[in-house]
Amino acid sequence: MASSYTFSTWTSNGSICASKASKNNAEFICNYPNGNFRPTIHSMTTSASADISLSWISSNEKEINWKGGKSSLKNGVKCSALDFETKPSFFKGNKFHFEDVIEAQQFDRDTLSAIFDVALEMEKIEKNSAGSQILKGYLMATLFYEPSTRTRLSFESAMKRLGGEVLTTENAREFSSAAKGETLEDTIRTVEGYSDIIVMRHFESGAAKRAAVTASIPVINAGDGPGQHPSQALLDIYTIQREIGKLDGINVGLVGDLANGRTVRSLAYLLAKYEDVKIYFVSPEVVKMKDDIKDYLTSRGIEWEESADLKEVASKCDVVYQTRIQRERFGERTDLYEEARGKYIVDLDVLNVMQKHAVVMHPLPRLDEITVDVDVDPRAAYFRQAKNGLYIRMALLKLLLLGW
Amino acid sequence: MASSYTFSTWTSNGSICASKASKNNAEFICNYPNGNFRPTIHSMTTSASADISLSWISSNEKEINWKGGKSSLKNGVKCSALDFETKPSFFKGNKFHFEDVIEAQQFDRDTLSAIFDVALEMEKIEKNSAGSQILKGYLMATLFYEPSTRTRLSFESAMKRLGGEVLTTENAREFSSAAKGETLEDTIRTVEGYSDIIVMRHFESGAAKRAAVTASIPVINAGDGPGQHPSQALLDIYTIQREIGKLDGINVGLVGDLANGRTVRSLAYLLAKYEDVKIYFVSPEVVKMKDDIKDYLTSRGIEWEESADLKEVASKCDVVYQTRIQRERFGERTDLYEEARGKYIVDLDVLNVMQKHAVVMHPLPRLDEITVDVDVDPRAAYFRQAKNGLYIRMALLKLLLLGW
Amino acid sequence: MASSYTFSTWTSNGSICASKASKNNAEFICNYPNGNFRPTIHSMTTSASADISLSWISSNEKEINWKGGKSSLKNGVKCSALDFETKPSFFKGNKFHFEDVIEAQQFDRDTLSAIFDVALEMEKIEKNSAGSQILKGYLMATLFYEPSTRTRLSFESAMKRLGGEVLTTENAREFSSAAKGETLEDTIRTVEGYSDIIVMRHFESGAAKRAAVTASIPVINAGDGPGQHPSQALLDIYTIQREIGKLDGINVGLVGDLANGRTVRSLAYLLAKYEDVKIYFVSPEVVKMKDDIKDYLTSRGIEWEESADLKEVASKCDVVYQTRIQRERFGERTDLYEEARGKYIVDLDVLNVMQKHAVVMHPLPRLDEITVDVDVDPRAAYFRQAKNGLYIRMALLKLLLLGW
Repeated sequence: MASSYTFSTWTSNGSICASKASKNNAEFICNYPNGNFRPTIHSMTTSASADISLSWISSNEKEINWKGGKSSLKNGVKCSALDFETKPSFFKGNKFHFEDVIEAQQFDRDTLSAIFDVALEMEKIEKNSAGSQILKGYLMATLFYEPSTRTRLSFESAMKRLGGEVLTTENAREFSSAAKGETLEDTIRTVEGYSDIIVMRHFESGAAKRAAVTASIPVINAGDGPGQHPSQALLDIYTIQREIGKLDGINVGLVGDLANGRTVRSLAYLLAKYEDVKIYFVSPEVVKMKDDIKDYLTSRGIEWEESADLKEVASKCDVVYQTRIQRERFGERTDLYEEARGKYIVDLDVLNVMQKHAVVMHPLPRLDEITVDVDVDPRAAYFRQAKNGLYIRMALLKLLLLGW
Repeated sequence: MASSYTFSTWTSNGSICASKASKNNAEFICNYPNGNFRPTIHSMTTSASADISLSWISSNEKEINWKGGKSSLKNGVKCSALDFETKPSFFKGNKFHFEDVIEAQQFDRDTLSAIFDVALEMEKIEKNSAGSQILKGYLMATLFYEPSTRTRLSFESAMKRLGGEVLTTENAREFSSAAKGETLEDTIRTVEGYSDIIVMRHFESGAAKRAAVTASIPVINAGDGPGQHPSQALLDIYTIQREIGKLDGINVGLVGDLANGRTVRSLAYLLAKYEDVKIYFVSPEVVKMKDDIKDYLTSRGIEWEESADLKEVASKCDVVYQTRIQRERFGERTDLYEEARGKYIVDLDVLNVMQKHAVVMHPLPRLDEITVDVDVDPRAAYFRQAKNGLYIRMALLKLLLLGW
Repeated sequence: MASSYTFSTWTSNGSICASKASKNNAEFICNYPNGNFRPTIHSMTTSASADISLSWISSNEKEINWKGGKSSLKNGVKCSALDFETKPSFFKGNKFHFEDVIEAQQFDRDTLSAIFDVALEMEKIEKNSAGSQILKGYLMATLFYEPSTRTRLSFESAMKRLGGEVLTTENAREFSSAAKGETLEDTIRTVEGYSDIIVMRHFESGAAKRAAVTASIPVINAGDGPGQHPSQALLDIYTIQREIGKLDGINVGLVGDLANGRTVRSLAYLLAKYEDVKIYFVSPEVVKMKDDIKDYLTSRGIEWEESADLKEVASKCDVVYQTRIQRERFGERTDLYEEARGKYIVDLDVLNVMQKHAVVMHPLPRLDEITVDVDVDPRAAYFRQAKNGLYIRMALLKLLLLGW
């Protein structure tokens, strides 16, 4: 995608970017709040972008740097510092204002609601309709460094539902096997040569951003270790919108393993973007929600409360979001695990105190933290939630490859 | 596919079904030979079907129950007791009268021969002809809990030869990995959200039926442990029809491991549906055909005979069906294994006594129970037999997704 | 593809072939330089080809024999001795004069340059253009007996970029698992029933040829153990052509593990087909280029020289081809490994002495034998080289399935 060599000079937000370029050489200067930089790109090949980012780096310039680098391969050299400040436009045909999906926090309210509109369109696509072919000719690589069949199938289904094709690998570790020891960056530079978009699952926090820095094609983070899993966070919030009809002024109960659950942490983070939300934390002592999230919510003026009474909370909530207690977190202490695990179960008793319009959600897989007799109740939303993951992923693929 | 909420009252075969339903609630009564049942479906979500089947169960009601449950999700509530009694119609455009393919025994003679006609059409489909695109837009999930590359490739080739797309997983166990422990039912409810049909291979007998109970989309059993492998049984009988030209009045020799061979047992079962068939069992003492099959054949008036003389049998048979002696069945007793294994080999000597029109079949893989010098003989049908598996699977996919 | 039973008699290059055939029987005599043979094909099934090749064999007749065998299944019985002597024709629409791609040496200069022309066309194919659909309806099976994600993704991308479909297996060993013990030949006969072309990776040298002998569809060798990996060799030489603009009269430095590197050995072999080439070997003592290659080069009048001074060599070369020192070759002697590994690194110092038009190549993956700061230099060609693999593989698939 290093095909477009248009360069421009422009002023925006008081910053000035100037650049000129020949086929194999481009220079630019960029003034931005944290100071100036003047990298020189000796070549317009993919690798170039990554390597300017390596050649001069500083924690907070990184963001700007690699975005700049990447942009230089696409539509002229830009500072993404400016990108982030420019207001998004959601009109059909407009470019999606992100080149990658790395973390849920990168989206503001307006963008989220615009993405949800696209996801809703995706639900309506009929077999063999024109809509089902919009990604025809596009190739998605699922680069999974650890298996996650559920997530992989969801992304691959999304791509194929839009007429796209898929290159699958669930043993991406083999790229960098002991004997070989290839870096993630080198692997990305190879795979980007074969595909149009990369969906990556990795065991290391931050790996997705490293991949995005390197790649000249879009990268979607499908989970990087304890880090982010943005498409999961988006489908959770989308499901609340779909089921409850609003995101402002709702009561949400987060139940189960709040200390280790990546999904509940991201969800709490995203809910803070909305007005008049109240969050209840219901969890065993050993796996309580951590202070960083509590402080963040407080700083954003979001009301929250801890409770030990699931039924009492359930009766007040629009959404009861149950999660699995993860045995692996307890090591030897299986006694603590068993105790924690049995403490807060969503069963018919809990269901009976819930309001008629309320829903039970769960990121899946579930063990017995929700009893199966709950499944038949229309308020059991967790399988519809899983299905929504398909529409959200269709939307993200469409937006990254085709724009609005 | 839980979209259609039409309900009706009807009389058929002296049974009466009455039902009424609101969007989220349906009731029905159903009289059938074995008595009455009145399940209540609290919700029209997919899971409902599974849960009525859990809520009341008895060995012989099961069949009816889950069929009933599933039907309720599709075109109104029905008793499959009636389904099974109503005569099938094989006219083009008619719905296939099964929602799943779970075991070979579910098909009667008429249905089998109608399926074979479709398989024959499949053989004639040309590259890039209209026929090669009939499943365009459909997505098949191959949900394999144990690897079976041969079977998986055959199904995936079948789907793609018809223009369909595939989601592959050969590590489906990962869904329910120790750490996670998801039930098969939950996995199915997730996967059915991503695909239009599920082809499942499982290590547990009965797993395919459990999946079919749960799924609101068609399920094909691609082998469930020691249980069934219907598409294999169908391709065997189809191959006999293709090679010999008839299924009535034939002599079939079943050779090798008759005690443990899933294929020979299913084949014997299916052959019993035809007239004037004679079956010869030729096997080492330790792996003789079991009495249940012998008794069944007798009860159906099928002549059968045990013999220790392979050549003598081969000279009389239209089909010599050789199977592999499975070492794993003998545990420590490798001496017994070696003895059993060497006893009945199909070689040129056996071939030379066979009639000109007769054929040698084998489910593959083979070790040395058929010598390679036999391969070049036109009567060696086993690779054509493997190829027929492709056409049978194309036919099943076509029928389940599009009907006759 | 064993459908055509046309037989003919013809004279060519002073050799005479005569044959007659009935549906199930064919005979032929064939005179060629190394003597006569008169195999009899008892049957026109695929297996026939394999089995004549088993029935009479001798090192240098093998080539002719199995080619003859295979031809007999396609367009009449031929001697490939003649095939090899007949001049290839590269006109559009003509049949590619090879049925398989087994080793780089099978291609002469003219054929290589014609293949490179096709690869160049492949680079120009636009998304959703007519060109991107030329393999629509074709099915490629990637039969990998050992994982090689890089090579597999490259081939699968190539197939899909041309509108073709893919059947993937990275656990082909499962076909012949201990319990089962199926031969490679039987596996091939099964897989050829499901697909139109087989791309095979195997752990045994010679396996690709065995597969080609058996298969009635094209086979591409994607690496067979220490043996051949022709598409890699082709992409290397294609990259030199693309980057330097010529293959005659160039200086090439082969650096690193020259004793074990399959790629450098094949490259040296192919370079010998060109005029006025000079090759420099730069490697640690323990992994020097072996005499067989040196002798071959000498016999072909190719100048070569060993040197211990990488910078001095780099300054004279058009191409510096760096390779990874493979730890696994040193066993316990990690001291030797560490010494060998650190000895010849391509870094900015080396780069600075290189000519402006010269390039650095590497088969990838790389460890630190090329420092990352080299990546941004336009002369760093290794990621473009990887991308060229895509175009070469597209070309091979197109040629084998559609011809010129």
